[in-house]
Formats: sequence, C-alpha cells, structure tokens
Amino acid sequence: MTELSPTAAQAATQTATQAADIRIAHDDLADLLAQIFERHGCSRTVARILAGNCAGCERDGSFSHGVFRIPGYVGSLKSGWADGKAVPKVEEVGPAFLRVDAANGFAQPALEAARPRLMEMVRAGGMALLAIRDSHHFSALWPDVEPFARDGLVALSVVNSFACVVPHGGRSAVYGTNPMAFASPCASGDPIVFDQAASSMANGDVRIAAREGHALPPGYGVDRDGIPTTDPKAVLDGGALLPFGGHKGSSIAFLIEVLSAALTGGQFSFEVDWSAHPGAETPRTGQLLILIDPARGGNAGFAERVLTLTDRVRAAGQDRMPGDRRHAHRARTEVEGIPLSAAKLAELRALA
Amino acid sequence: MTELSPTAAQAATQTATQAADIRIAHDDLADLLAQIFERHGCSRTVARILAGNCAGCERDGSFSHGVFRIPGYVGSLKSGWADGKAVPKVEEVGPAFLRVDAANGFAQPALEAARPRLMEMVRAGGMALLAIRDSHHFSALWPDVEPFARDGLVALSVVNSFACVVPHGGRSAVYGTNPMAFASPCASGDPIVFDQAASSMANGDVRIAAREGHALPPGYGVDRDGIPTTDPKAVLDGGALLPFGGHKGSSIAFLIEVLSAALTGGQFSFEVDWSAHPGAETPRTGQLLILIDPARGGNAGFAERVLTLTDRVRAAGQDRMPGDRRHAHRARTEVEGIPLSAAKLAELRALA
Repeated sequence: MTELSPTAAQAATQTATQAADIRIAHDDLADLLAQIFERHGCSRTVARILAGNCAGCERDGSFSHGVFRIPGYVGSLKSGWADGKAVPKVEEVGPAFLRVDAANGFAQPALEAARPRLMEMVRAGGMALLAIRDSHHFSALWPDVEPFARDGLVALSVVNSFACVVPHGGRSAVYGTNPMAFASPCASGDPIVFDQAASSMANGDVRIAAREGHALPPGYGVDRDGIPTTDPKAVLDGGALLPFGGHKGSSIAFLIEVLSAALTGGQFSFEVDWSAHPGAETPRTGQLLILIDPARGGNAGFAERVLTLTDRVRAAGQDRMPGDRRHAHRARTEVEGIPLSAAKLAELRALA
Repeated sequence: MTELSPTAAQAATQTATQAADIRIAHDDLADLLAQIFERHGCSRTVARILAGNCAGCERDGSFSHGVFRIPGYVGSLKSGWADGKAVPKVEEVGPAFLRVDAANGFAQPALEAARPRLMEMVRAGGMALLAIRDSHHFSALWPDVEPFARDGLVALSVVNSFACVVPHGGRSAVYGTNPMAFASPCASGDPIVFDQAASSMANGDVRIAAREGHALPPGYGVDRDGIPTTDPKAVLDGGALLPFGGHKGSSIAFLIEVLSAALTGGQFSFEVDWSAHPGAETPRTGQLLILIDPARGGNAGFAERVLTLTDRVRAAGQDRMPGDRRHAHRARTEVEGIPLSAAKLAELRALA
C-alpha cells in the first residue's frame, strides 16, 4: 500500500532491468493478470479492475505493488478470506457524501462502483466524500487519486492496513503502514501525486535489508519486546516499524485509522485477523476519499497557482516533485513495453 | 501557528509557574485582551473573538500562542498590515462548500462568520468544507477544530504561514510552518485533538535554544546558504527549518500550501511580503477546514470506536493522547486561575 523508498525502488528497478528478458505491453499484461484473477474466483468486472491496477503499477515502476503482489492476491482469494465476486453497495448519505459497503471485496471495484455518482456530486457541489468499508486494499494508493487530478480535481485518500507499526512511545504494533495519497492538477501537465506510508519505511525495504544483511537506520524499528533495533530480521520476526517523523507521524497514523476505519465502519488495523485463512495477505479494513473541484469552488486559476508553487519548490533546489519518477517511467514503458523476466512471465502464465 | 514541542512547552510552563505572581480568571484575561485589540483598531466583534482565543491558549498552557503573541498582533494592527475591522464575506459554493473572503482580517472571525451556515450544512449532508482566503492566522490551530469535536464532528484544518521551511533536498525557504490540526470525538469524554507543524520544530523552540546556548538536533535546520547546521542562531539569521520526517513531512508541507492557498485563493507562504509594514508579524494567507458528521454519515457508534482505538494505543505503551496535556492544564487553571507574572500583567495593562 505504500510506494518504495528511493533506495528500494532503485534496487528493484535495477533488478527488473537486469532480469528483463522480455517486454510486454500494458494491455497484454493486464489481460494475463485478469485471467489469473478470474481463475482464482473473481468476477469478470473485479478481475478487469484489479488487473488494470496491478499492470499500471508495474508499468509505472511501482514494483512493490506490481506483479510482485499477485501471489498475495491469489492467497487471499484461495483461502476464502476475500470475496472476488462481491458486489459493492453504494449508499447516498448526503448531497456530497457517499458510502460503499465493499462486502468483503476489494477496494478498487468499490471505488469504481461509486465513481459515476461521485463525479456528479463533485461537479454539482464542488466537493464530495467517499467512505468505503469492509474492503481489501492491497495495491498502491496513488492509482486511486491520480485519475481524479487528471480530471481537474484535488483528491486525498487514506487507507489502513494490518498492525505492524508501533505508536510513538509504545512497544507493540497498533497501526498499519497507513498510507496517505494526494493528487493535484498542475498547469505544466502531469499532476503532482504523492503516496506515502505513515511508517518509517516500507515493509519491502525491511525485507531487502534483511536479505542483503544491511542494518536499518536507528529509530526505524523495534523487536518483539518493543526494544529499539536496527536489525531488520528482528523487525520481521515479531517486531514492528516505528512511524515516520516521531510523534507527528504517529498522530498521522492515528488520524488515518480514525478516518479509514472508525468513520467508514471498517476494521482497525489491529482487528484484522486472518489466522483462520492461511495464505491470506490482503488487509480487510476501510478507505476514505475526499474530492474537491477547485474551479467549481470558485478558483479557476488553481492549476496555474500549483505550477507557481512547484516552480518555486524546484527553484529552491528540490530536484523532483512527487510523481515525477513514476510519470517518467510510464512514458518510457509505454513506448518500450514493460520489462519482465521470462521466469516471472512463466510464473504468471502458470497461475492463469 | 503551532504548539510548542514538549521540551519548549515544559520550559515555558516552568518559567510561567516560577514567575506566576498572580492568578487571573479566563474571562478577566479575555476582557483585558479585548480592550487591547479594540484600542489598536479592532472592531468589538473581532476584539472579542481574538481575545477569547488568546486567553484560551494561555489557559490551556499553549503559551507560545497565549499573551506572548499580543505584541505581534499589535504590531500587525499598528502597521496597517492587518485590518482589525474587516467584515468577512461568506459565499455559498455548493450544498457542502463555503468560501470566506476574510478581506485582510483575521481568520478566527472569518470562521465565526461561517459557523452557523457551516453547521447547518454538515448536519444536513454529513460533511462540509470551508475555504478561507486573505486571512491572518496568528494563533494555535487546535482552538479552530476542538469545539467541532465537542459537538460530535470530526474536524481537520490546515493553514499556511510565511516562508521559513526548506523543501526536502532544497536550500531556501518556501513553506511556512504549516500546521495541521485534527479533532475527533471520543466516548471517554474529552475529544482527541492534535495540532502539529510540518516543520521539524517550532520557531519558538529555536529561539529558546539560541537563548540557552543549546545546539539543535542534526537535520532540523539550515543556515542562510542552505547548509545543514545545528546552530540555532544560524537558523534564525537568514536560515530556515527543515520539514519534520524528511521527504514525507515535506510532502505534507506542500499539500498544506495547496489546500490553504492555491485552493482557497489565499497567498502562498513565500508570497507574504510585509516589508512595507514594519512591526507586522501575522501572515496573510488562507485556511481550509473539513467537517464530517459521523452519525449523519451512517456511523452512530463512531465515538465508541475511537475510544476502542485510543484504549489500544494506550495499552501499547503510548502514555498520553494528543490533547491530554492541554485538557489537564485547562481543568487546573479553570479552578486555580491562569498564572501570570505581575510584570506581564502590567505590560498588558499598558497596552489596553
């Protein structure tokens, strides 16, 4: 649910490039993934949505949420933990407030089911809020917000996951990695999009450090007794991550639990119990999305103003804006195809 | 616009307690402050609102936004930078979207002007959004959100300020301290309320460190050339703070500029130019507020769920929740009165 840090993303890019025996077009990859989802119990609609989302992550270099996630999806479906045929139920609460009961299905089809009415609401009133509950979110969060920014809207979304993050000053995990994603139109073209976990680092980074024998930076994790550690294996073996940025990041993790779960009617991260479903990996929680239409809200010059801000940020020396790397990766793979190893392709075909 | 860190707050508490020659009731302090605001050009309405806000901060131990701020308010008013007689103009954009042109007045009277219609909107539709522009916010942000949580609503607000924070990887200041405040009802009684800057620390903390000759922690500030420094004097002398939590805190500072300024029609922090108004201290920017009614949104058990979460966070070892210290301070000063030194009281009386 969170993008990799630059270090892990670079390592993953390198690995993907070195091992890239073939190049596959986005739509071909999506078709293959859709077959996998259908074969393991998803309806055609759900399979198409999840496959497009996952292929999009692979295309954009979000490798931690690309085909890497397919075995986890399959595990959740095969174990009976998630319902791939669930039909989301959309309820209108107010003129700018939708709720969706995902009915133990995935979050992305719930968002798709709500999208038409959500867009009518935000165009009519200038803003809209979507509360999804009883949903599984196992992808990056940026794909949920970026399309709205391309339609001229500001979008903010949060989702909780499963307990693997210790509150600031605490000893045991309560929060999930709890990402927040934000997308805004920008007059220069591509929107500004960020997607960041409330944890100090991504779980994928911890696994990479353990595999490569690197220590974690101090202040990133605790062991199973809640004692600070720089040993990635101790974090993975019953330990937990700390929030990013000390007590402030911890407050943000708390806010995300409140908005994603308490407010929507979903489960808290610490309530996720998949022990009766071996192989399950997709957290069953909730998600909140807020949309704002700057033009309908009385500010037609909004995208130009965001460009003024990003120009100033770049002039101050920040070399890239959030989303830049993904958009560059997308532009490249749309021409060259998505790199994939022959072994990975064979694995995927065996699942289809 | 941000609360002090524990260290500075403790130092301030100690100073306040040591020097507490007298105790004054909240309403008496508010009356005295209202006289000061009126004498320096505020309308009676504006004076009453700012005085109540400022006395409330002093009462709750938010000393960095209590009477300490009065000379700054007076400087902005005397220099003609802020308009203490401005009448906010409320515009209804949609069924859940209000805008307010604060007309170069203060943000708190703009919020008060919008409040009645805002409450009707959120009760009717389950949520509402308020965008304030051309406003001066010189207080803590928690007083803006806490009252809504006491009315059963979830409230989130952001405000930008003046350039004093360097983007991650940059060398010169672009962002303000850019606080975010969040308040949520909780079934145990007092709401959960946090108010935190996107900067690594409060400006007040830097001043205290400079005065006492302490170094800053590494990674907190840069000097006037953008070089990292632990010297608080170098930060104050043309340098800047860094965001909290590296690139993630930097993204949050960016988000807050977009929502508070680009979206509302207010100025960015780096556009604030008070050079023609010596003595001015109140940033002229914008503010966004989002309100959600959990019960109207279909989740009547919300406050109980938040209590379940906070119980779990405390059980994990976090010794207090955001807002706990302020609420404890308030309970004490409501009985004992607000401590104030005779010298400070004399200063205030001289301004009234």
